[in-house]
Amino acid sequence: MEDERQPEPANPAVQERIRNSFDRQGLMGHLGARLGHIGPGRVHILLPSRPEVTQQHGYFHAGATSAIADSAGGYAAFTLFPENTSVLTVEYKINLLAPAEGEHIEAIGQVLKSGRTLTVCQLEVFGVQGTQRSLVATGQQTLIRIHARAEQ
Amino acid sequence: MEDERQPEPANPAVQERIRNSFDRQGLMGHLGARLGHIGPGRVHILLPSRPEVTQQHGYFHAGATSAIADSAGGYAAFTLFPENTSVLTVEYKINLLAPAEGEHIEAIGQVLKSGRTLTVCQLEVFGVQGTQRSLVATGQQTLIRIHARAEQ
Amino acid sequence: MEDERQPEPANPAVQERIRNSFDRQGLMGHLGARLGHIGPGRVHILLPSRPEVTQQHGYFHAGATSAIADSAGGYAAFTLFPENTSVLTVEYKINLLAPAEGEHIEAIGQVLKSGRTLTVCQLEVFGVQGTQRSLVATGQQTLIRIHARAEQ
Amino acid sequence: MEDERQPEPANPAVQERIRNSFDRQGLMGHLGARLGHIGPGRVHILLPSRPEVTQQHGYFHAGATSAIADSAGGYAAFTLFPENTSVLTVEYKINLLAPAEGEHIEAIGQVLKSGRTLTVCQLEVFGVQGTQRSLVATGQQTLIRIHARAEQ
Repeated sequence: MEDERQPEPANPAVQERIRNSFDRQGLMGHLGARLGHIGPGRVHILLPSRPEVTQQHGYFHAGATSAIADSAGGYAAFTLFPENTSVLTVEYKINLLAPAEGEHIEAIGQVLKSGRTLTVCQLEVFGVQGTQRSLVATGQQTLIRIHARAEQ
Repeated sequence: MEDERQPEPANPAVQERIRNSFDRQGLMGHLGARLGHIGPGRVHILLPSRPEVTQQHGYFHAGATSAIADSAGGYAAFTLFPENTSVLTVEYKINLLAPAEGEHIEAIGQVLKSGRTLTVCQLEVFGVQGTQRSLVATGQQTLIRIHARAEQ
Repeated sequence: MEDERQPEPANPAVQERIRNSFDRQGLMGHLGARLGHIGPGRVHILLPSRPEVTQQHGYFHAGATSAIADSAGGYAAFTLFPENTSVLTVEYKINLLAPAEGEHIEAIGQVLKSGRTLTVCQLEVFGVQGTQRSLVATGQQTLIRIHARAEQ
Repeated sequence: MEDERQPEPANPAVQERIRNSFDRQGLMGHLGARLGHIGPGRVHILLPSRPEVTQQHGYFHAGATSAIADSAGGYAAFTLFPENTSVLTVEYKINLLAPAEGEHIEAIGQVLKSGRTLTVCQLEVFGVQGTQRSLVATGQQTLIRIHARAEQ
């Protein structure tokens, strides 16, 4: 499902725009998430395992899994937007396929359809332990492009 | 949409079971979330505003909104389960209706259909500022009942 | 879940706009569906039981259940739109709660949030047998308002 | 997204089980849908264009698109089930990416995760005109395996 080809990275201006936005997301820093690959229409976010992101059985909480999946999809959409625009999640749906465990989880947002107003992304989250990767969640997300706020 | 009748609380054993489980969810404590009303088939979770739960514009992050909505639905289902069972989220879908802001947000999970294997919940999240409440997210969730782990 | 108050009907011009559009939906006529109540932000569609709308066990096919739910939500949104606009379904999610059976099924689309660009609806489908009504499906739908085509 | 490799067909007994079930779905026959490829964990269903399956603008109705997508996913899951079991859709979510048009539409259900109780499928629908294929809808579906009815 996840191909290992790492498509070319997005151009530096786009990467910087996304890193700046990510750094302003208090939740991502608080969870300990970090940006991985940033390509055109495709963004990876990693979340290392720690007690602060678990549910009652010690697995990654679905809320943490969803949070990085949602952000990965949002930034994937954002890589294709012109300057002075911003992105909001309209909705998403996620299936939790297996208990999320591993050294870290990695969310991949991939644009399926990029329209003028709406973008649709595929969301995948993998549990990673050493060289083992297994799909733990899969989702689908709709986003809307809006005119950017001044500070954006 | 949200009625102000507070249905009777769940019985004390159920309440305690849920409080114990909630306390083991590292993510809920890390976000600063706390349990509100616990009724049969209905659970509220509150999340106070703080920089650690925001997205890039200062609103509550969709991941935080979703995390407490998911937990509220999970515990709502759990109130109707027999002892020695556990609950897992199969999937959920959530629409973010408006920027989530306020002193706190409150997620309400409400069981729509409780089956032997699967439970379906409605999820609602309100932004609360003083006496003002506005619906910021609405969702639908499917959960599965499983045999409990020893520690559950 | 479904209140029995029938809110006031939509104004006659809106009703006519919806009836005209409904009559142009080849699928609705082919299934045997018909419009019920048309109120502001709320539309009912009925589908009588017949072999042509079943799945392999003789219940209403999820595709038939979904088709009238999708149309009910679309028209519910449409009741609140200005003239010279049109409506498209962006996405929907539906849970099939129980086998759909009865003399007919009735789908109710209800607007939860009406924005300038996007509208979110709740979808419910009931199986109806005499005076018995039971919820067989529940869903959530996102729609987009577009400039109307000439023929609309 | 859709690879052109046609994986090997399912074994003849499985194919026959699915053809028999499909023939009992009154709705599929009424719409004019027919089975395409039947492989292990993957089923295609085609629906030719005709006025009986349209919405008000002459495109395929989202209800028809969804109906064949739902059935394709259900049968994809069913190919992996043991005898004397049956399949029910728990829920699905579908994004309508573009107006569905063409000589026919083709729905592809693909199993993403096959569990003992629950199966998760990816749903894709393509509009096909001559050699042109374009993705018009994408979805995600949860199904449950149940003990078969006598007639199944």
